[in-house]
Amino acid sequence: MSQVLREHIQQLVPLSDEEFAYVLAHFTPRKFRKHQFLVQAGEAVSADFFVVSGLLRSYFTNDEGKDHILQFAMEDWWISDYQAYFGQAPATLSIDCLEPVEVLCLSLENREKICADLHKMEHFFRKKSNAGYMALQRRILSLLTNNARQRYEELLRQNPALFQRVPKTLLASYLGVSRETLSRFSA
Amino acid sequence: MSQVLREHIQQLVPLSDEEFAYVLAHFTPRKFRKHQFLVQAGEAVSADFFVVSGLLRSYFTNDEGKDHILQFAMEDWWISDYQAYFGQAPATLSIDCLEPVEVLCLSLENREKICADLHKMEHFFRKKSNAGYMALQRRILSLLTNNARQRYEELLRQNPALFQRVPKTLLASYLGVSRETLSRFSA
Repeated sequence: MSQVLREHIQQLVPLSDEEFAYVLAHFTPRKFRKHQFLVQAGEAVSADFFVVSGLLRSYFTNDEGKDHILQFAMEDWWISDYQAYFGQAPATLSIDCLEPVEVLCLSLENREKICADLHKMEHFFRKKSNAGYMALQRRILSLLTNNARQRYEELLRQNPALFQRVPKTLLASYLGVSRETLSRFSA
Repeated sequence: MSQVLREHIQQLVPLSDEEFAYVLAHFTPRKFRKHQFLVQAGEAVSADFFVVSGLLRSYFTNDEGKDHILQFAMEDWWISDYQAYFGQAPATLSIDCLEPVEVLCLSLENREKICADLHKMEHFFRKKSNAGYMALQRRILSLLTNNARQRYEELLRQNPALFQRVPKTLLASYLGVSRETLSRFSA
């Protein structure tokens, strides 16, 4: 599973075999079954998760018990409750597996260590954070300016793979529409 | 105006006089009058802007000519169209001045240069980007889960200074509610 991570990093920075071995030694591989939790609201967040295989979601459960999906993640993506991870605070999100999942876990301590030791890894994580920032900004603009059908079509265009793998009920939760509304769009 | 930038950077990383002089040399100071534009939709984005004094907003204008405010920025904050800045693409946002403004402008080329030359500046910008990512994630959760009155109260709690300086019409645009609805909240 380390090859997926190496190719992912090398899209942004070149790494020698020694450098990659050093980086990889700071990750812990873990496997989860479908429905298992990587993060549970209220608990500490141990890691940022690089997805080697499988599909996950992060979501917020409001006071009335309604779930709002913040993010999906599949191969080659990162997922965590970043507020809790970077801020070392209890999670407000939950993250669970929609498929069996293999991840590489990076603790905050190890992240800071490899960034301090290897300038090029600090560069890598800065670039990833910038890309994540841009994606969230697009999502906010979409929430502010697009109606439900436009958000549906945007998601279909940006992430067609999600529509093959994610149950319609969960896509509806991500888009903030009812299951019935979503069915009308995809009919 | 350089002292504001130095204190801002030194909240995260210590800099010697020589290092700060080197960093500062990559910024260009500019002044704008109220109503002037730093970024106009459709045009190239020259810089990321560090605000030394004054108040700005970034906004998206939809096909019907309706503005949606994405962000405000005041002293000590950064503002740009990051999609356009990092992606070297034409702006989709506009940024204009709600008050007279002094900014320090950082081109993408200069940002990359100081990050490559000074590991601690790469660290600084990674940390800023992480903080920005967390703020946007909070905003998305707020848009997905809170009603208009809750979003109003959250903004008042997080940024009381905005309520002193920003016209109610613009706060309403940021919150995605009508001016009349906002008046009921603040009554």
